[in-house]
Amino acid sequence: GIGADNDLYINQAIVFIEDAIQYRSINHRVDSRSLWLYRWYYSRTCQWILSLTITVILALAFIEKPSSLTITSDVRYRVPAWNPPCGLTESIELLCFLVFVVDVSVKSYLIGWEEFWKNKWLMAYILTLIVSLTDWIVSLSFFCTEHVRIRRILRPFFLLQNSSMMKKTLKSINSTLPEMASVVLLLAVHLSLFTMFAMLLFARTKDGQQDKEWVRYFRNLPDSLTSLLVLLTTANNPDVMIPAYSKNRAYSIFFILFTVLGNLFLMNLLTAIIYNQFRGYLLKSVQSSLFRRRLGIRAAFEVLSSLKETHANAQESHVSTGALLRVLHKVEMDSRCKQAIMRSLKMCSCDKLSAAQFQKLFEEVDKDAIKQHPPSPEYQSHFMQKMQFAFGHPYFGYLGNVVALANIVSICVVLVLDADKQPSERDDFFLGAINCFFIPYYLLEMLLKILAMGLKRYWSYPSNRFDGLLTVILLVLEIATFAVYGFPHPGWRPEFMGLLSLWDMVRLVNMLIVFRFLRIIPNMKFMALVVTTLLDLVKNLRAFAGILVVVFYAFALTGIMLFKGAVTSFYIKKVVVLSSKEKYDFMALFGDFQAEIFYCLLYLLCVNLICRWAKVYFVAWWLISSVIWVNLFVALLLENFIHKWDRRCHRESLSDIEYQRTVELMFRDVLEEPTEEELMEKLHQHPHLQLCR
Amino acid sequence: GIGADNDLYINQAIVFIEDAIQYRSINHRVDSRSLWLYRWYYSRTCQWILSLTITVILALAFIEKPSSLTITSDVRYRVPAWNPPCGLTESIELLCFLVFVVDVSVKSYLIGWEEFWKNKWLMAYILTLIVSLTDWIVSLSFFCTEHVRIRRILRPFFLLQNSSMMKKTLKSINSTLPEMASVVLLLAVHLSLFTMFAMLLFARTKDGQQDKEWVRYFRNLPDSLTSLLVLLTTANNPDVMIPAYSKNRAYSIFFILFTVLGNLFLMNLLTAIIYNQFRGYLLKSVQSSLFRRRLGIRAAFEVLSSLKETHANAQESHVSTGALLRVLHKVEMDSRCKQAIMRSLKMCSCDKLSAAQFQKLFEEVDKDAIKQHPPSPEYQSHFMQKMQFAFGHPYFGYLGNVVALANIVSICVVLVLDADKQPSERDDFFLGAINCFFIPYYLLEMLLKILAMGLKRYWSYPSNRFDGLLTVILLVLEIATFAVYGFPHPGWRPEFMGLLSLWDMVRLVNMLIVFRFLRIIPNMKFMALVVTTLLDLVKNLRAFAGILVVVFYAFALTGIMLFKGAVTSFYIKKVVVLSSKEKYDFMALFGDFQAEIFYCLLYLLCVNLICRWAKVYFVAWWLISSVIWVNLFVALLLENFIHKWDRRCHRESLSDIEYQRTVELMFRDVLEEPTEEELMEKLHQHPHLQLCR
Repeated sequence: GIGADNDLYINQAIVFIEDAIQYRSINHRVDSRSLWLYRWYYSRTCQWILSLTITVILALAFIEKPSSLTITSDVRYRVPAWNPPCGLTESIELLCFLVFVVDVSVKSYLIGWEEFWKNKWLMAYILTLIVSLTDWIVSLSFFCTEHVRIRRILRPFFLLQNSSMMKKTLKSINSTLPEMASVVLLLAVHLSLFTMFAMLLFARTKDGQQDKEWVRYFRNLPDSLTSLLVLLTTANNPDVMIPAYSKNRAYSIFFILFTVLGNLFLMNLLTAIIYNQFRGYLLKSVQSSLFRRRLGIRAAFEVLSSLKETHANAQESHVSTGALLRVLHKVEMDSRCKQAIMRSLKMCSCDKLSAAQFQKLFEEVDKDAIKQHPPSPEYQSHFMQKMQFAFGHPYFGYLGNVVALANIVSICVVLVLDADKQPSERDDFFLGAINCFFIPYYLLEMLLKILAMGLKRYWSYPSNRFDGLLTVILLVLEIATFAVYGFPHPGWRPEFMGLLSLWDMVRLVNMLIVFRFLRIIPNMKFMALVVTTLLDLVKNLRAFAGILVVVFYAFALTGIMLFKGAVTSFYIKKVVVLSSKEKYDFMALFGDFQAEIFYCLLYLLCVNLICRWAKVYFVAWWLISSVIWVNLFVALLLENFIHKWDRRCHRESLSDIEYQRTVELMFRDVLEEPTEEELMEKLHQHPHLQLCR
Repeated sequence: GIGADNDLYINQAIVFIEDAIQYRSINHRVDSRSLWLYRWYYSRTCQWILSLTITVILALAFIEKPSSLTITSDVRYRVPAWNPPCGLTESIELLCFLVFVVDVSVKSYLIGWEEFWKNKWLMAYILTLIVSLTDWIVSLSFFCTEHVRIRRILRPFFLLQNSSMMKKTLKSINSTLPEMASVVLLLAVHLSLFTMFAMLLFARTKDGQQDKEWVRYFRNLPDSLTSLLVLLTTANNPDVMIPAYSKNRAYSIFFILFTVLGNLFLMNLLTAIIYNQFRGYLLKSVQSSLFRRRLGIRAAFEVLSSLKETHANAQESHVSTGALLRVLHKVEMDSRCKQAIMRSLKMCSCDKLSAAQFQKLFEEVDKDAIKQHPPSPEYQSHFMQKMQFAFGHPYFGYLGNVVALANIVSICVVLVLDADKQPSERDDFFLGAINCFFIPYYLLEMLLKILAMGLKRYWSYPSNRFDGLLTVILLVLEIATFAVYGFPHPGWRPEFMGLLSLWDMVRLVNMLIVFRFLRIIPNMKFMALVVTTLLDLVKNLRAFAGILVVVFYAFALTGIMLFKGAVTSFYIKKVVVLSSKEKYDFMALFGDFQAEIFYCLLYLLCVNLICRWAKVYFVAWWLISSVIWVNLFVALLLENFIHKWDRRCHRESLSDIEYQRTVELMFRDVLEEPTEEELMEKLHQHPHLQLCR
């Protein structure tokens, strides 16, 4: 009937508007039941359960068998890690897999059969699930004694497929690969030619004294290749050429040429290429988000205009205000935006809306909240007004900064004086006495500021929140110290009591004071610019960081699987041979997952130490993490910073209004609005929606 | 009289046109005698003498007292260096100073008294000369026994002031300094806050076993600061945190935070800032060069138009063709350009030239020579034509590449097989036999190509020149080998004869073969692009490299002066204590100038090893060479590469015509022509030229 049809149209409009707000694609089924399923699937609860499942399955690695969560990383000292019984982690895994099966079925159903075959991500999702479940069955049938567990390496895929940003980023990285591959090929040619040169140059001589270089670094082809590859990372920079250089200065020309060509030219060329490819990346991604939003709104307009209650007499299609109001009541969106739209709908006072008017109404969604700080309280008393003026003045804030600096300097002086004292000689009186002065000052400053600005206004500034919270924590710690250890006096060296020793307490307080010093950042213009750039960057980098996590997770688990035994036996040999040389302690870290995270994060390359396969593994990791990812990071930083810098002049006029910065806002003035034709063409290509006209 | 006036005008026009061609400023005296002096000063001989003098005075450091030019760098083995007698280097120095005195007097005279006072470079030049001469007198009066020689540190100034490019670059760097200083300040704040954190975190504990971290890296304030600064350079990357990490994994958070903030964010921010500042640098510098050229031409036009032979009846000023021809005959310029201008002057067939026509004539100077390869010889015989087709075909070149690759691979195989053999077991037959096949093939290839293309056409390609030269050298070496050691046969192990042993000969030949393999570069598109980018970069980097040399020279000589004694005594102590630990050999390198060049070029940081002042010295050097210079380099590379990449499509259509690439050409389509008003305004500001109108 017409009523049912109308209800369907209303529901469609609701979902399309929600899609627009969330920047989702509108290419899904649009019949009543599918719409209900769609809204259920994208409801907060469902998405939260999905995210939780992904987190749980990824976190399993920390408690599964070859891993450990001990405090020390040294295999010589640490206690054996807790080993979960067979079946515990496996049943958690099964639960997660079931959630994923539901997820993939709902997703596939919603986009429809035809679209499903075109969607490679969904196919890969199903394949991954099948492989994982098979592996799980194999694992259980061996009672968890098998060593190769493919499903672990596949786990990060679940994270990847759930984020559209990450998929988009991966696509961009993929399109940069050919050029990156060319440079990597160039690097390989560079490396192999220089390796041959080196082998001919530093050949074995008849005089055993003369060929130190050959013995240590260029004994055979793999050794030479490794030496030069490590030189490319600058890890063995001077050492590798010292024997040759001692023999004849001219040998240094070889190494200088290699370093300049490889490190300075080719490596930076990679930066240039990646930057060149990613220059338009942010803009393009924001532009396509904008298109999705406009398309959703337009689709909502089209379905609403075909509501039977409007008589199709006019040439142009229209939407009645009443229908829009009904839709708006049911749409889930930010309440501020919803109210703003309703308000402008009432102010418009027209009965029907054209497509342009409809689109314009929803531009409110693009706008960001302008944050107004609450007003200061108005005091009647003349004295209070003077107080308010004095303590609300920026100079009072500067005074606070100067005091904080004085505190830092005094801590520094105490640290320098105490540096060489034995712990038994150490006197905590001085630091205690200093804190007795500074912490009350911080408290007083906070209270006076609250008095001048009012609690609400005080709290609305992030710098004040930071400051206030730290002051309160400092106060609590100080009171706790005095309660346990009494007031400071010369020769204040009490015994250990309670949770922390006095020395630990004092250290903690001082660390917090050093941390509190960061409040000066907003007062320094350049620092503030840098910090906001960095914060923006962190927002834009989430997708990249996600991909890094995915790659890293797969690498770490592959590493554990491949080298677990090798590293342990290697380590034992090492301890026997080199027990005195503590420099090789860090090999001890290698046995477990967290150590590997740590190990890799800091670009360690110990390629010389383990077997050949480990070399391949580490070179791949170095290429991905250190070379490609760092360059991507630099490219994004350049992009962000240059945009920011160019707009700095504009900002200064707006400095008293704090915008909530988003990427969309940053590019607002360069974005292109999609044209009517583009939108309608896209709408007519919709696989499920049949527009009347 | 009028004749003398006319001669003056002609001479002025000649000098202005020469200024325009050389991109020189036209703000110099323009009377007859000054013009003669000016042309003499900028004549090739004079400029060559000046460059030679600068080279000589800079090269003096290599033979002066504290330096050495021995083959080995190890102070334990090397023979004492030659010590020039007192007065030898000093008299060479005096000669150089006299040349500089003449140089500065001529320059000051030519720009005139008023301009002289505005020119800070000239003032600094005079000051440097006075200080140097005073220091020289002091040195001689002490009979060369004094240790502090300020004049040595000042020497690179002479290089700096002689290059206008370097002065311009220095100005740009100077304008970037405030922003760089902000980031460096930020780095300093980052470093000091983290140092305080570290000192509080890794404090001395009562249990001596637990505070390894404190003992090794955070004993006191300077130690902590150094540890973290070195961590910023990633030189001590894993080592510094191993003791703490062994104790508790959570300590790694501190180091990861420090590295991510410092290395990943702040260091790359510096890159972004420098890139942002230098984005327009190349364009601006090319633009100002263009302005100088147009101004010189316009000035020539103006003086020629005021020649008395043209009757000032017309409203617009004109130049007679005859006068221009007289000027052109005397101007020193590229003969190709001169002929082209004369040709178009004849084709024009007009008697008088307007300013626009005059300017247009000289546009020939902007154009680059289009290099046409000479034609192939035309053979009559049908057989020869077929031969020509076969061996002139690109596929023949590809075959040559494949053969070269096969040669490389076979050398590689021999090297791998021979890697572990004793020198006495080694059999040179195999490598000798291989060369007996390949080198004749290379010769044949060269001859056939010459046959197909003709000698002239063959020689006109740079890749053929490279190829042919190497082939000839290889042939000569091979013939010499056979002449001395006979033909290769199994068990070919002759005794040492002549200059080089057979083994050295074979190695040299193989190195040349590896080097010859680079001929594949022009065949691979991406490689060719990269190589041309790098070559362009080298051209554009000359000014930067010059500044690096200046800074480096000053640093190296300061270092020698400051640490000469310290390092030697330190080294002796080191040898006694650690004679077994050859890792510290490289300290031995430190005693001399070349070692220091080498040491610094590769960003070595051994801040832990010498005294405090050395730390300051090395940190300054690290900041300048590694941080600032490398970032400048990256910025220029990005700039160059992105321009190149954008224009790649345009290039492909022109690929058969090889342009001699210059920076001007790269920017041709974005350069703005200066307007008539700008030129005339600048001309009227000329301090010495009084225009009639």
